[in-house]
Amino acid sequence: MIGKLRVVNSITKEKIEFQPLNPPYVGMYVCGPTVYNNAHLGNVRTYISFDVVYRYLKQLGYKVRYVRNLTDVGHLLDDGQDRISSKAKLDNLEPMEIVQKYTNDFHDVMLQFNALPPDIEPTATGHLMEQLEMIDQLVENGYGYESNGSVYFDIEKYNESHHYGKLSGRNIEDLLNQTRTLDGQDDKKNPLDFALWKKAAPEHIMKWKTKWSDGFPGWHLECSVMSTKYLGESFDIHGGGMDLKFPHHECEIAQNVGSHDHEGAKYWLHTNMLTVNGQKMSKSLGNSFLPEELISGNHQMLDRGYSPMTIRFFMLQSHYASTLDFSTNALNAAQKGYIKLANGLKLVKDMTFEVGDSPMNEKQKEQILKICDNCYYAMNDDFNTALTIGHLFNLLKKFNAIQTGQLHTSALGEDVFNKMKNTFLLFIVDILGLKNEDHIDGNRLLNHVLDDYKQAKSDKNYDRVDSLRAMLKTNGIVVKDLKTGIDWAYEE
Amino acid sequence: MIGKLRVVNSITKEKIEFQPLNPPYVGMYVCGPTVYNNAHLGNVRTYISFDVVYRYLKQLGYKVRYVRNLTDVGHLLDDGQDRISSKAKLDNLEPMEIVQKYTNDFHDVMLQFNALPPDIEPTATGHLMEQLEMIDQLVENGYGYESNGSVYFDIEKYNESHHYGKLSGRNIEDLLNQTRTLDGQDDKKNPLDFALWKKAAPEHIMKWKTKWSDGFPGWHLECSVMSTKYLGESFDIHGGGMDLKFPHHECEIAQNVGSHDHEGAKYWLHTNMLTVNGQKMSKSLGNSFLPEELISGNHQMLDRGYSPMTIRFFMLQSHYASTLDFSTNALNAAQKGYIKLANGLKLVKDMTFEVGDSPMNEKQKEQILKICDNCYYAMNDDFNTALTIGHLFNLLKKFNAIQTGQLHTSALGEDVFNKMKNTFLLFIVDILGLKNEDHIDGNRLLNHVLDDYKQAKSDKNYDRVDSLRAMLKTNGIVVKDLKTGIDWAYEE
Repeated sequence: MIGKLRVVNSITKEKIEFQPLNPPYVGMYVCGPTVYNNAHLGNVRTYISFDVVYRYLKQLGYKVRYVRNLTDVGHLLDDGQDRISSKAKLDNLEPMEIVQKYTNDFHDVMLQFNALPPDIEPTATGHLMEQLEMIDQLVENGYGYESNGSVYFDIEKYNESHHYGKLSGRNIEDLLNQTRTLDGQDDKKNPLDFALWKKAAPEHIMKWKTKWSDGFPGWHLECSVMSTKYLGESFDIHGGGMDLKFPHHECEIAQNVGSHDHEGAKYWLHTNMLTVNGQKMSKSLGNSFLPEELISGNHQMLDRGYSPMTIRFFMLQSHYASTLDFSTNALNAAQKGYIKLANGLKLVKDMTFEVGDSPMNEKQKEQILKICDNCYYAMNDDFNTALTIGHLFNLLKKFNAIQTGQLHTSALGEDVFNKMKNTFLLFIVDILGLKNEDHIDGNRLLNHVLDDYKQAKSDKNYDRVDSLRAMLKTNGIVVKDLKTGIDWAYEE
Repeated sequence: MIGKLRVVNSITKEKIEFQPLNPPYVGMYVCGPTVYNNAHLGNVRTYISFDVVYRYLKQLGYKVRYVRNLTDVGHLLDDGQDRISSKAKLDNLEPMEIVQKYTNDFHDVMLQFNALPPDIEPTATGHLMEQLEMIDQLVENGYGYESNGSVYFDIEKYNESHHYGKLSGRNIEDLLNQTRTLDGQDDKKNPLDFALWKKAAPEHIMKWKTKWSDGFPGWHLECSVMSTKYLGESFDIHGGGMDLKFPHHECEIAQNVGSHDHEGAKYWLHTNMLTVNGQKMSKSLGNSFLPEELISGNHQMLDRGYSPMTIRFFMLQSHYASTLDFSTNALNAAQKGYIKLANGLKLVKDMTFEVGDSPMNEKQKEQILKICDNCYYAMNDDFNTALTIGHLFNLLKKFNAIQTGQLHTSALGEDVFNKMKNTFLLFIVDILGLKNEDHIDGNRLLNHVLDDYKQAKSDKNYDRVDSLRAMLKTNGIVVKDLKTGIDWAYEE
């Protein structure tokens, strides 16, 4: 390892050395999406950020178990339509169909952006028994109480011996002053208390029978339960979007401490928000777009679309904990930058060390080795992908110099050349997760070749006609000379 | 609808008209894979078969809810390695990591073969509470009994008033004669009884706390529970591989009847087995290959690989209820057939009706309309895809005659032409789920074009050099004339 990895822990706001609890193992839990609608760009940014964290930790040699959940217990209500038959359930709205649809959509989006799947992707409905057990434990420990078929977490009781609000820097008195009692929350002792189990209204579809009521688990509970089940009572990293700090992550900490006296995560990492031309991105302002709209360009604020790798590159040009501003200018610049890097990737993959008689260029060697180290130093600085990309462009200049003949590989020696090549590919492909998109449209190119063929025919240049025909045949394509013109088919 | 759909119901072996319980709704449950190892070819065949059933039912106008489960409760044992820390779980084998890996693999395979995702893909671990409820119901109804922390289904009691074995045509006396008591089954009243809940041995990893024991559900239970939850106590179609008829599907029927007095599925459909050169495909015979091996050709029995669509086409050339024999000859023939169809697809997509002065050709019109109807009749005959493909090739002959000028679209009239075009595309793309694979390798074609460019340069044919350069530029490709030769880059 070159240098030491340091991370900014949201809980202290300090940049500290990353020291896993049980090296070489690292446990990382990231709050996943609620699969009741399309993945939004904020999700994409968060999961690309943690994808890079996951990739880099693995490159450092850690055995990482990455758990990212799917929240599939929703609050769908029966739409009240007639039930044709009491036995057939087919004519009712089935929440799990919606869950399935948006789970598939989310996976498609993640695949497009080349985010690795997590090692475990647990669901809330898949861990109901474990959730009931944690509720029992919280009640037994005095932090949970039943009221009218629901079970709540007792914030005041918890705060007697712990600090509710420590992650987001709040205190319970201020929170109480800001809170007004909402309708239907009368069964809570305190308006800050949150539900562990909620009794379902009759029209609620997703519910399960328990000793308290037919109901469903509170949203915060699943993450405490699933991180504990798969990573242990104490684990290394908990990630998520900044908007989850309060109340979701505060509640998680309270549940973990309340049930087994451990805080859960040692390091909290939070990704920051998206803005558009400096304004907060939000549906109500009409300035938010779906990943798919950004890719296709099919949105009123966009003149054109951007490829998934361009968007990934664009996102990695900012540090995950900074806000990320979308603008046409910034996206177009990212497009140029990404193609430059993609050309670099293409160039470097095929570049080999060549023996020659150039004298050793110690200055170049030193510069190159320093850039290689800098890539690690940048990533070690709280996963600073923006800085890393800058170093990779510096390295690319050296490769370009080799290609144009200004610098000869023999002036670097084989070891230094191999190191620069391996570092460049490792960081772009394996750590930043940028891959070459196939920009070459075979069908479009083929049409141009067929235009050539037509021209040769009308020029009566039969040598060329034959050579084009033969060339296409080696590509599995047969040219058909029809009365009506030229066509082609796959060779049968 | 043209004609009536008839299906062979495995439970009666008769071909009968398909009449859904609550039209226009159709509920279909198919037993999915156990996600503890790679999807095998038998899985692929089964799920491609039911994919076509699903697609065809939707084309007939039914609102289909297709449920296919993932069996994720396994029988993994703790591998006994040291636990470095009592708190950290990271160093232990985690079954859910294995589940995740093979779930992802299964989804990748299904996507490659262009099988639509089911509407709901429920997991066994996601329905534990529902399984416990069904066990309670079975015990209450007298069909389940507890013994040493496990709960078993009482076959003899069930058989007093029902027929255990009706689907697979067995009777309990014969089954009893064939069964010997195995070690560790002494807690059963009868060796035929099967587990609803199984007390876990201490080294068992996946277990949950219940009133009976820390244990796990019996394998048969999940399908009864999940089909009931998502499709109702009575639903239309239950599918699966033939090897599941006994005991799995028999047990499902017994559980459904035992808990709520309905048999569950009205129609049972079973796919048949795979053979290789006439021999049963099996790991122990060394003649089984993974989907990925068949695609890559990387297997001792294969000379070459076959594309996913070739394999799909190959499978659909047999009826789902017949055995399917793999041989190099049959696969190569399928390859030719599929490319022929892919060429047809390409041809027909762009073909348009052209006004002309040909006299009406009533004989051709009649033949074409008959072929179109035959496609439906074939599919209506228990989803006979093999026959359907034959009719589609007959239709393709007519399109080829149009292309070569032997038949003019104006001799058919616009309605007949549109009908033949729409039928052809509908059956290939939407019903059989065959799509054009991109056979044109843009990079390979580009290399040939660059060879041309080099030749033109050495011939000093600068007009041609310029025109090739310009052509590539419109494809986003910049040619670079380097001292060392020709290279290219994406336009930045």
